[in-house]
Amino acid sequence: MTFNTPSNIGLFNAELGIEIDEWRDGFVKISMSAAPRHMNRSGFLHGGVVTSLLDVAGGYAGCWCSVEGNVRRAVTISLNTNFLRSGGVGELIAIGKVVGGGKKIFFCQMDVFNKSGDKIAFGTANYKYLRGSEAIEGVEP
Amino acid sequence: MTFNTPSNIGLFNAELGIEIDEWRDGFVKISMSAAPRHMNRSGFLHGGVVTSLLDVAGGYAGCWCSVEGNVRRAVTISLNTNFLRSGGVGELIAIGKVVGGGKKIFFCQMDVFNKSGDKIAFGTANYKYLRGSEAIEGVEP
Amino acid sequence: MTFNTPSNIGLFNAELGIEIDEWRDGFVKISMSAAPRHMNRSGFLHGGVVTSLLDVAGGYAGCWCSVEGNVRRAVTISLNTNFLRSGGVGELIAIGKVVGGGKKIFFCQMDVFNKSGDKIAFGTANYKYLRGSEAIEGVEP
Amino acid sequence: MTFNTPSNIGLFNAELGIEIDEWRDGFVKISMSAAPRHMNRSGFLHGGVVTSLLDVAGGYAGCWCSVEGNVRRAVTISLNTNFLRSGGVGELIAIGKVVGGGKKIFFCQMDVFNKSGDKIAFGTANYKYLRGSEAIEGVEP
Repeated sequence: MTFNTPSNIGLFNAELGIEIDEWRDGFVKISMSAAPRHMNRSGFLHGGVVTSLLDVAGGYAGCWCSVEGNVRRAVTISLNTNFLRSGGVGELIAIGKVVGGGKKIFFCQMDVFNKSGDKIAFGTANYKYLRGSEAIEGVEP
Repeated sequence: MTFNTPSNIGLFNAELGIEIDEWRDGFVKISMSAAPRHMNRSGFLHGGVVTSLLDVAGGYAGCWCSVEGNVRRAVTISLNTNFLRSGGVGELIAIGKVVGGGKKIFFCQMDVFNKSGDKIAFGTANYKYLRGSEAIEGVEP
Repeated sequence: MTFNTPSNIGLFNAELGIEIDEWRDGFVKISMSAAPRHMNRSGFLHGGVVTSLLDVAGGYAGCWCSVEGNVRRAVTISLNTNFLRSGGVGELIAIGKVVGGGKKIFFCQMDVFNKSGDKIAFGTANYKYLRGSEAIEGVEP
Repeated sequence: MTFNTPSNIGLFNAELGIEIDEWRDGFVKISMSAAPRHMNRSGFLHGGVVTSLLDVAGGYAGCWCSVEGNVRRAVTISLNTNFLRSGGVGELIAIGKVVGGGKKIFFCQMDVFNKSGDKIAFGTANYKYLRGSEAIEGVEP
């Protein structure tokens, strides 16, 4: 499957350079390359980049479609992030996993790793499927 | 005071177009203009933009300096975001307030409003001052 | 109105001694008296007592009924707590306020104060109405 | 080792009936038996019981001592809980694991399971060691 289509990667994800590396039911692995422009005023990776990765990873994990080319959409209800250590430039990997939920709301846990494989942040989130996106087949984009 | 100096606005904040509008001890008001490039694949404001604003607003609220030109630095320990409604293009305003804490850790609550004045997200966060940034005078950049 | 009926105060709330002091649409004030049996192994107020107050305050804030004697029920989706300072014995007051939401999900912010009026914790939560509890009139218990 | 000593199990934990089943560096398994008195006004397990288990599990996970009889103490900075499904009476098990942190602050993830082994809630938390409790040997109670 080709994951990185415009209907999967929105404009802000493209700005950040986020790509989907692995995707299956309840799981996603995404990555991006952190550059100097992603740093905060103290020279560390900006917290907003980290939370972007976490939010995207959790959302994708619950929106995998069994029909290629279809999409499922969800909105985030709430997102919680714990920052373990400061990040810097280089590749970032985020893993999202669905932990549970029902037909309309799903719950995820997510991790972000730096290029050395250290976990730099982890979090949890819950999402609500947009109407029509509850079924695993998804809908036409 | 001129708030929007390079030592206050880091590179990722500049990318997002974040500006500091008001800043005093325990309080900040920041803003940015959301453009199409800040939207997600569903055409709504990306959650990562919202969490960036919340993280920055809380951090600044605790890092105001009584000495002009000095800086105080802090790292986020954890950040929690609740998404009330979808956002779109146009001006976004975020307010950060310090709720409490001690010499080393401070706690904040933050809100994000859209151009119509609707609260689109709110959150809480806690931060740890970097060594030397505990005092309100701050340090030289 | 008499708020403290068995259909409003469940068994665990009664164990804790939680009472409803004020209640209107989108707002509640509850209280309890913290005793030595509510302390943790370090002699401070147990975090679980604080989170119980926050969870209850947020839930009640969204479940006020315009028809006396009716009830509205909701389940918590997620709850976030920030602990500002250690608590001890004596009266505790919690305030819950609805911040926003739609027909099915509502979002709250909550605070807990000690007998001296110091805020000892604050938090946010989101809840889902049980089917039938969406309307402000509520249903028969 | 005998874990369930008064210096480990505080008064509120004893009220809830919490016991420590397994404990090692960075990990704990605790349990309690949920009775009707732990239910909320809707007849489900009270959210405050769930958050109590999560808070305790995370705290213990970071406070294991290598010297039997010694203690380590920490206070919770913030706690986030996601509620996957309603609970009822019967045995509850909570697992706490340290995910990371430094000398003074540690971060945990925690899960609560019902008697059927279903995960009913999961969460994350961060804690600050009280002065003297940073070292794994702990201090005399």
